[in-house]
Amino acid sequence: MTNTKPTGGELGRPLLGDEIVGRINQLGTISETPEHLARVFLSPQHKVAADLILSWMVEAGMRAHLDAIGNVCGRYEGDRPGLPCLMLGSHYDTVRDAGKWDGPLGLITAISCVADLHKRGKRLPFAVEVVGFADEEGVRFASTLLGSRAIAGTFVESALNSRDRDGVAMREAMVSFGLDPDHVGAAARTRRELHAYVELHIEQGPVLEQKRLPVGVVTAIAGATRLAAHLTGMAGHAGTVPMAMRRDALAGAAECITKIEELCQTDGGGLVGTVGYIDAMPGATNVIPGRVNFTLDIRAPTDPHRKRAVADIVRQIEAIAKRRTLALQVDVTHENRTVPCAPWLKAQVAEAVAAEGFSVFELPSGAGHDGMAMIDIADVAMLFVRCRGGISHHPDEHVEPADADAGARVLLRLIENFRPREEGAAKK
Amino acid sequence: MTNTKPTGGELGRPLLGDEIVGRINQLGTISETPEHLARVFLSPQHKVAADLILSWMVEAGMRAHLDAIGNVCGRYEGDRPGLPCLMLGSHYDTVRDAGKWDGPLGLITAISCVADLHKRGKRLPFAVEVVGFADEEGVRFASTLLGSRAIAGTFVESALNSRDRDGVAMREAMVSFGLDPDHVGAAARTRRELHAYVELHIEQGPVLEQKRLPVGVVTAIAGATRLAAHLTGMAGHAGTVPMAMRRDALAGAAECITKIEELCQTDGGGLVGTVGYIDAMPGATNVIPGRVNFTLDIRAPTDPHRKRAVADIVRQIEAIAKRRTLALQVDVTHENRTVPCAPWLKAQVAEAVAAEGFSVFELPSGAGHDGMAMIDIADVAMLFVRCRGGISHHPDEHVEPADADAGARVLLRLIENFRPREEGAAKK
Repeated sequence: MTNTKPTGGELGRPLLGDEIVGRINQLGTISETPEHLARVFLSPQHKVAADLILSWMVEAGMRAHLDAIGNVCGRYEGDRPGLPCLMLGSHYDTVRDAGKWDGPLGLITAISCVADLHKRGKRLPFAVEVVGFADEEGVRFASTLLGSRAIAGTFVESALNSRDRDGVAMREAMVSFGLDPDHVGAAARTRRELHAYVELHIEQGPVLEQKRLPVGVVTAIAGATRLAAHLTGMAGHAGTVPMAMRRDALAGAAECITKIEELCQTDGGGLVGTVGYIDAMPGATNVIPGRVNFTLDIRAPTDPHRKRAVADIVRQIEAIAKRRTLALQVDVTHENRTVPCAPWLKAQVAEAVAAEGFSVFELPSGAGHDGMAMIDIADVAMLFVRCRGGISHHPDEHVEPADADAGARVLLRLIENFRPREEGAAKK
Repeated sequence: MTNTKPTGGELGRPLLGDEIVGRINQLGTISETPEHLARVFLSPQHKVAADLILSWMVEAGMRAHLDAIGNVCGRYEGDRPGLPCLMLGSHYDTVRDAGKWDGPLGLITAISCVADLHKRGKRLPFAVEVVGFADEEGVRFASTLLGSRAIAGTFVESALNSRDRDGVAMREAMVSFGLDPDHVGAAARTRRELHAYVELHIEQGPVLEQKRLPVGVVTAIAGATRLAAHLTGMAGHAGTVPMAMRRDALAGAAECITKIEELCQTDGGGLVGTVGYIDAMPGATNVIPGRVNFTLDIRAPTDPHRKRAVADIVRQIEAIAKRRTLALQVDVTHENRTVPCAPWLKAQVAEAVAAEGFSVFELPSGAGHDGMAMIDIADVAMLFVRCRGGISHHPDEHVEPADADAGARVLLRLIENFRPREEGAAKK
């Protein structure tokens, strides 16, 4: 239950946070493994979760169904049937050993907001749809955003043939789940059906906590480039090769990592670079490493910024390798473009934050979200909710009930005050 | 067969290198596994090798036996029986996936030298003993120098209870080999039985190759300190934690590694420092490492030098961790003191090198050797033989036959010209 009083809200309104936290806990018990939370795409537990969410949607006054890829979709009609919608949502799959907030908070909050409208019998001049995306994390088939891509019409059919770690093809898993893999296309929506897509999500970072703010307005979902670097020198005995004769691949990698950190720290424009994985071979205490592999993840608020940084960093790594007579191979293993939040929509989010009595603070999202797929059929905005210590993808992931309530109040305010950008065009 | 003519030797002497290379190849076929060379302490193949070496000793005119720990021991009497000996030797166990020269070259060369004396009917005013140490590498029971420690009387009985990776205790393995684990003490020798201990060994480093010299005179067996460092920061999402808010354990470790290399490179006194193993957790591309473990191996020609360096390095690592708000734990996992070669004995090795027409070049041994145990009962010296590319503990380990011959000629010259330091005292 709520243990801190919400501040800045309208008086007299029931606390949405209580219902939200209760449902977060309930959904968090639906897991493939008892000892930690894991609910990956198309697992039996994923189906149990879908059924529960569908029941909540119906209870909130929505027409609800499971779509062709396994997204749970609810629709609350506007003041007349068939109007274009404001789409809200987030994902209901999790990583393995997950926290219970990442994804579900946005989905459950949206349902609670609709339930509040429904309870008050309030209809708006547009429909409200809530989607629980079936796959955002991409844990099972090593391909992310499958749910939102199906809705955006950008689902790639060849993904159906990818297999999980047990050798089960996505196609077979869909059949087991009760879906028809030959009709994924039926999940696709069109631009004219949507006014916009807005997602509430936990920040997954420590910035709001540091700023002492329960919510933040997202400016953009940062693009990312991932690289794999391989340095090859010469292995040798730790005691017998003088320092001047060494071609130590790990000493070279260490210089690269230090340089990458320095470049990002001095950037000042939100560039972040991370070496998350490293492996030195042969890896014995008394052997000079002859080969090192490491990964590099680079993100920036804009694509040109990120691309410039990647080029800079690769140039510096090349110079270090050359000076040390190390062979270098660098491969791009992944690349995502930046998804900017639409200024008109972001302005309405900021307005709702201010109206609920909170300071408006803007920040980029360093993590990826379903908006990266939704951008293909709608303008996108996001609202972040503070999470404890910035911890995510971990059982310690936590949101204070008061913050969950704050997020819900801002989202409800946004829905009630929402003005489509071009009403005429959107209504067709 | 020898493919380069030896230079600088006496004319008319048969090439010892031919016999040595032939035996190296023969011993190199005695392996636990067909695809690579592995002959660890007390294995059946270790016994086959022992029997072969004993037969070579007998053929060389020595009285030969297997001692209580499995060392092969041969004795060539001096001009009257029972004289103290000049002890020569090296080990006949190997690492796994070994080269065939590390150990056997010194042992086989010593036998060939004695065989040469025997063929000529030459007796000296002291005995010559050759020992093939049963365990130097310490691969099987994670404890090195078991053979030479038994001879030096410093074998620790508790080692008998240590187990190999299959759970076999050393005690049981000794029984299978045909030895009595309750009588290891019988292998011990006393200081008055030995004039000195001299070992020929491949360099295991690239210095002699760079100097274009077949042999080198060892100044000391460098002591070593091994440390295990653990850095703990805070894991986090690679996209959501700004650079200024990170406590990245890997970025911290990289700075430490760079600093360690810099300290060793600028030392100028033969200090070497190696980070051979590193592990970053959780080790995912898109997660800031929250914890890093790395090892550090530090060696220097003298103990005070090494100890000063270790203290310096630990101080620097501590400063880096403190500045980055990382928790640091550093443990000493291993420490060996430096074993200096006795000046009087080293001078005789140098004399023999010069007499065979080679430039006298002195270098420390960065690797450990049986002399580290033998120092407890005898003055020690070593002669290094060049190996290709400094490569060792690897199937590519190689010594040119001409260099094997050069080493043998120097060793034979040393034996024939050997003058005990204090003949009266040594003879008792």
